Amino acid sequence: MDFLKLVYGGSTGAVFKGPAVDPVELEKLQNRLEEADKWLRQGIDEGNDGFGWLKLPYQQTEHVFEYGNWLGNFENVVQIGIGGSALGNLMLRNALVHPYYNEIPLQKRKGPAFYVADNVDPHGSKSILDVVDISRTALIVVSKSGSTAETMANFLYFFHQLELAVGASMAPDHVLVITDESRGSLRAFAKDTGCRSLTIPSGVGGRYSVLSAVGLVSAVAMGIDIENLLEGAGEVDEKLNSRKVILDNPAWILSALHYLHYRKGRNIDVLMPYSDRLEDFVEWYAQLCAESLGKQGQGFTPVRALGSIDQHSQVQLYTEGPDDKLFTIIEVKRTDNPISIPGVNQPSLKELSYLYEKEMGQMLSYEAMATAAAIYRSGKPVLWIEVEELSPRTLGGMIFFFEYVVALTGRLLEIDPFDQPGVEQGKRYTYGFMGRKGYAEHRREAEDLFHMLNRKSIEL
Amino acid sequence: MDFLKLVYGGSTGAVFKGPAVDPVELEKLQNRLEEADKWLRQGIDEGNDGFGWLKLPYQQTEHVFEYGNWLGNFENVVQIGIGGSALGNLMLRNALVHPYYNEIPLQKRKGPAFYVADNVDPHGSKSILDVVDISRTALIVVSKSGSTAETMANFLYFFHQLELAVGASMAPDHVLVITDESRGSLRAFAKDTGCRSLTIPSGVGGRYSVLSAVGLVSAVAMGIDIENLLEGAGEVDEKLNSRKVILDNPAWILSALHYLHYRKGRNIDVLMPYSDRLEDFVEWYAQLCAESLGKQGQGFTPVRALGSIDQHSQVQLYTEGPDDKLFTIIEVKRTDNPISIPGVNQPSLKELSYLYEKEMGQMLSYEAMATAAAIYRSGKPVLWIEVEELSPRTLGGMIFFFEYVVALTGRLLEIDPFDQPGVEQGKRYTYGFMGRKGYAEHRREAEDLFHMLNRKSIEL
Repeated sequence: MDFLKLVYGGSTGAVFKGPAVDPVELEKLQNRLEEADKWLRQGIDEGNDGFGWLKLPYQQTEHVFEYGNWLGNFENVVQIGIGGSALGNLMLRNALVHPYYNEIPLQKRKGPAFYVADNVDPHGSKSILDVVDISRTALIVVSKSGSTAETMANFLYFFHQLELAVGASMAPDHVLVITDESRGSLRAFAKDTGCRSLTIPSGVGGRYSVLSAVGLVSAVAMGIDIENLLEGAGEVDEKLNSRKVILDNPAWILSALHYLHYRKGRNIDVLMPYSDRLEDFVEWYAQLCAESLGKQGQGFTPVRALGSIDQHSQVQLYTEGPDDKLFTIIEVKRTDNPISIPGVNQPSLKELSYLYEKEMGQMLSYEAMATAAAIYRSGKPVLWIEVEELSPRTLGGMIFFFEYVVALTGRLLEIDPFDQPGVEQGKRYTYGFMGRKGYAEHRREAEDLFHMLNRKSIEL
Repeated sequence: MDFLKLVYGGSTGAVFKGPAVDPVELEKLQNRLEEADKWLRQGIDEGNDGFGWLKLPYQQTEHVFEYGNWLGNFENVVQIGIGGSALGNLMLRNALVHPYYNEIPLQKRKGPAFYVADNVDPHGSKSILDVVDISRTALIVVSKSGSTAETMANFLYFFHQLELAVGASMAPDHVLVITDESRGSLRAFAKDTGCRSLTIPSGVGGRYSVLSAVGLVSAVAMGIDIENLLEGAGEVDEKLNSRKVILDNPAWILSALHYLHYRKGRNIDVLMPYSDRLEDFVEWYAQLCAESLGKQGQGFTPVRALGSIDQHSQVQLYTEGPDDKLFTIIEVKRTDNPISIPGVNQPSLKELSYLYEKEMGQMLSYEAMATAAAIYRSGKPVLWIEVEELSPRTLGGMIFFFEYVVALTGRLLEIDPFDQPGVEQGKRYTYGFMGRKGYAEHRREAEDLFHMLNRKSIEL
């Protein structure tokens, strides 16, 4: 395999206690998947809004490299963004950079320490300033609209700290803005101050933006090989584009199985990689999945898991709880850092001799297999995805693969996988509470609702 | 309020589109909750297995302090454990210690750097050794049985590294074992080597063990005031014990609402604190909830969320997805680190003037209120928990509160909230794959099952 192997014998057929997915049902979706794929390809050609991510593997990366390398002049980089303007960066760092990257001395690292300010919790934002010297720090601020409240609040805070440290005239020289080509406050700020800026291509939504400047610039700064990342994404794109028969196409199968199991009442989608390096991949996927598919009263709920840890936390529920989940276990076959579990010359530990001289990575794979077998034995559907190794190229491929799967699933569910109307109501209420002009009525409405909640309360 | 306020007007009554919980149904559970509470109190008195956590607030802490302070002799501490032997430690660190604790220079910290080896991913385990000098490192190894495969594999690895660095005779002097009083390999190891050891009290299960030595020793090492932590837990215990009428007892109400909404088809339980410092509290709760309640085909699935971040990731699904969730939002009212969002003298940012001079913590509270209002408006049930401030005392109280709620809910569901039979199957399969004596048949069974999964696969 070049990228991945999808094993799906545990998700079709009549072995389940609950409702099963018949292999015939799968094949019956051929036409609908063909149509969905065509709709996607056509969307790119027509330059429709939301489809832009399909072109990202083939983008020009000159400016990304230029600014990514420029960040190397600083000791620290703080990315200010939320949701799709942070989760992808964290995912790339988690998968491809040392887990204790910021603790490694600067001389030994490939680039500046990297922090993400993605919440308006003053505790979190202030804590970053406890450990970075702001005068040696660059800010990447990311918001497509330039008006995301949480991002802009943090930007105002960090930019002001910069101004205090290096002076108002020098501060913009520490800032890279990533935003819309022409609209919004951040674009205007870049024009006014002359700070560096990059564009989020029109047609690329936040949760599909990791392979744009949003995710790539900080990756370059941390020494991640983004050319291979994009190459992997492009290869997967081409491979998927060349397979127009469902049983030939793992993305079509995965999409169809998610759709069918959901239709049969399994409203929970557990993604459980057996790799520390994919922990944040699951966070990223959870946004992709929830925002793309959770609408019109539909949408399965993504549940983030991590093997083997969640064997000691969630697997009790997975095996003996209700049959309301579709499980996907991801195994990474090869590791760069093998550990042979040493035998210890302690008679008291002889009960553990079965561990001696075994590869820890092999043990992790066995745990994954054991969990898949245990879940399957308990009568629940389980999918298995094998990845040969985790590299920029294979990760780029996986990113594109899952984006494609989710978009296709949205089409099967007959919803628009590229909008997110449901986040607007909360935004309007927040604007109202914050006293933004034009939102007084929203404030009243939110206060009324909150008052209704408060009709009943009890203290301890 | 001393500890918390539960606001539940948004979870009862007839405003929902889906099935509603009538206030009368709540009150009807009075007798069952009384019985459940009695069952708990009796379980303590009789010293029954699983009930030991109820006594932890009143334990002797002499040895915990002794060993916690001893850890202060080291530059680093690595806790080796999994599930309940790690999640509680991470939760306490996240809530009560600086978020970049390990990055703060040793002289400025209150104690050694703290790492957790809780997975058998060689990448993760090896990475810890890249950043710690093992010769200046103490190991805390935690397993009640002394046979948890993942924990023991990591222990063998780290202990061997210690032996290489400081010699076989000195290595045990870097080790603290926390295990059963008399049984198991770790207890035998402690006796043989003379290394330090503490006991997990009999009757305390892993997921209920954070307030035992398991969670407390590393907390002491990081400077957390565990006396206040335990005091808070004890205060909540007494308060709950003095309220035997449902509408008077927030734990009873919370338990009853979880039970009733689950019975009406809401199989997902979203816990969404608006505080960076409670991110790992939710992880800890997810284990408590899943392992305690996921059995006999029952159990709602805990979903971990974090405000305001997940407004830009999950709230689309929460408001416009299916009505299959009960939401609980947690607000922490006071922060130690207030930030006033500065106004910036940039005409280009004038659209953001509504943010100027506002408290960031107030903004976070508004976001929480806006999200609660938006979810409620979308017709879904939402609970609201207010905590005045996050301190060792209030956190101790919250820990005890949620343990009590989950145990009570188990009783309502008529299952045993203190066992976890469903994790054994996977363990046996892993033993089989690893070639442990006596598990050959389990290996064959697991291989057969895995072979069935593999009947269908497709590569990319």
